[in-house]
Amino acid sequence: MQPAMYSGRQWLDAIAIANRGLNYGDGLFETMRVHCGELPLWPRHRARLQEGAARLGIVLPDASFIQARIEECIANVDADVLKLLVTRGDGGRGYAPPADVDPVWALSLHSLPQAISTGLRLHVCETRLAPQPALAGIKHCNRLEQVLARLEVQRAGCDEGLMRNTESHPVCATSANLLAHRNGRWWTPPVETCGVAGVLRGWLLGQGLVEVAALSMDEVLHADALALCNAVRGILPVSMLGSRTWVASPAIHDLQVQLAMAYPMFSAAAVTA
Amino acid sequence: MQPAMYSGRQWLDAIAIANRGLNYGDGLFETMRVHCGELPLWPRHRARLQEGAARLGIVLPDASFIQARIEECIANVDADVLKLLVTRGDGGRGYAPPADVDPVWALSLHSLPQAISTGLRLHVCETRLAPQPALAGIKHCNRLEQVLARLEVQRAGCDEGLMRNTESHPVCATSANLLAHRNGRWWTPPVETCGVAGVLRGWLLGQGLVEVAALSMDEVLHADALALCNAVRGILPVSMLGSRTWVASPAIHDLQVQLAMAYPMFSAAAVTA
Repeated sequence: MQPAMYSGRQWLDAIAIANRGLNYGDGLFETMRVHCGELPLWPRHRARLQEGAARLGIVLPDASFIQARIEECIANVDADVLKLLVTRGDGGRGYAPPADVDPVWALSLHSLPQAISTGLRLHVCETRLAPQPALAGIKHCNRLEQVLARLEVQRAGCDEGLMRNTESHPVCATSANLLAHRNGRWWTPPVETCGVAGVLRGWLLGQGLVEVAALSMDEVLHADALALCNAVRGILPVSMLGSRTWVASPAIHDLQVQLAMAYPMFSAAAVTA
Repeated sequence: MQPAMYSGRQWLDAIAIANRGLNYGDGLFETMRVHCGELPLWPRHRARLQEGAARLGIVLPDASFIQARIEECIANVDADVLKLLVTRGDGGRGYAPPADVDPVWALSLHSLPQAISTGLRLHVCETRLAPQPALAGIKHCNRLEQVLARLEVQRAGCDEGLMRNTESHPVCATSANLLAHRNGRWWTPPVETCGVAGVLRGWLLGQGLVEVAALSMDEVLHADALALCNAVRGILPVSMLGSRTWVASPAIHDLQVQLAMAYPMFSAAAVTA
């Protein structure tokens, strides 16, 4: 399927050079798992998108219009990834947004990433997440920190990267949240000053399966088990962080089973399909 | 003139939805003053662009090819603004850049901003500049902090905004550097952890007309004179910051005269033309 682009409710032929997403990363996005013609986590993605739009002062297109376009897009899709990109729109005088502007947004389908049968090897990234409460938690399009961290991961030959804040506390991976198992419970770092409030992290917190706690690097390295989670891949075990290694953990298996009961698309069979 | 877009050295018809500038702000830009068919400050803009590309790992298109396209673009232009936008290119798996990718870049001409005959009224922005040495100084496309600050400026009915770092030290305006006159000398804050190393700021420092110093908010409020500088508008006096006001200052006039001797496009006559 070709990407579908819109300006407000109008079909769009091309992205303008004056698009504010292109020039300033002035936009938001959601990357969503499609399962049997549906987006099981859509309400959580929509809520985060609305929160981001409110924080940035971006006017979203009509919710029912977006929803109808999404339904058209994924009606016959069995298992895939749908990306929704919403930019503030075009133009304005430099950084100052124009007064009345239609958001320019797009839907595109992408293949599911390859399943990883073994645990993830994590690189400890030097690129830090800067503290910025105004942008923390939301899925905005200013992602150079993640791009730089990903370049580090590539150079290190690892699968993903652990990103730390300026106080050297672990926060998240480049495109997933961090889960650490300690003393029989699962913990995930706060995302009030940096990092993204992942949709699956939100579900795990809501279910009481995971709790929020600031973790030191030492606490993460000494965790009984480490995992990453995101809304596309579910819960993935970590096998290596720097020189520390972990073997398969029943705590991770338990969490994966709980998730698969609520969302069968994340069952091991679906993930490796 | 329509914007001219390229993928490497090839003419481009449209910006792809997979463009990394559009998705992640994964790019750089320069906004340059055109004067009588030339870009008098081009060597400084080019140097900052190259520094940004090296820091982000973006491969720039061939320098002579860019230069030739710029010359075509501005050959018959008397006074205008030329924007050069360079994105890393298209695609990749999420934040991970593709291995071999042609940069996608564009040239567009814009009108000179309206001349302001009186001093600028500055709003003290609540949006802070987060400390990020990996991105500080360069003119990258992750500009949500500036966009949010500009929204504050609009709401306050001011002309520009003073942006502070997380330690509440003034750093710059949303699209200009800050110059404060104290004890008979001009000072500008450092940009090693946040802010942009402005091209005109670089010229002023190189000429020994301005020196770098961290300034407290109190020191800025008690400055004898305050001005902003950027490569499009030159040196602009500040008349108001919060409740503090300033009258026209001979120190600013002197600095403007020095600049106009080197770059006549910034003479008062040219600016108000």
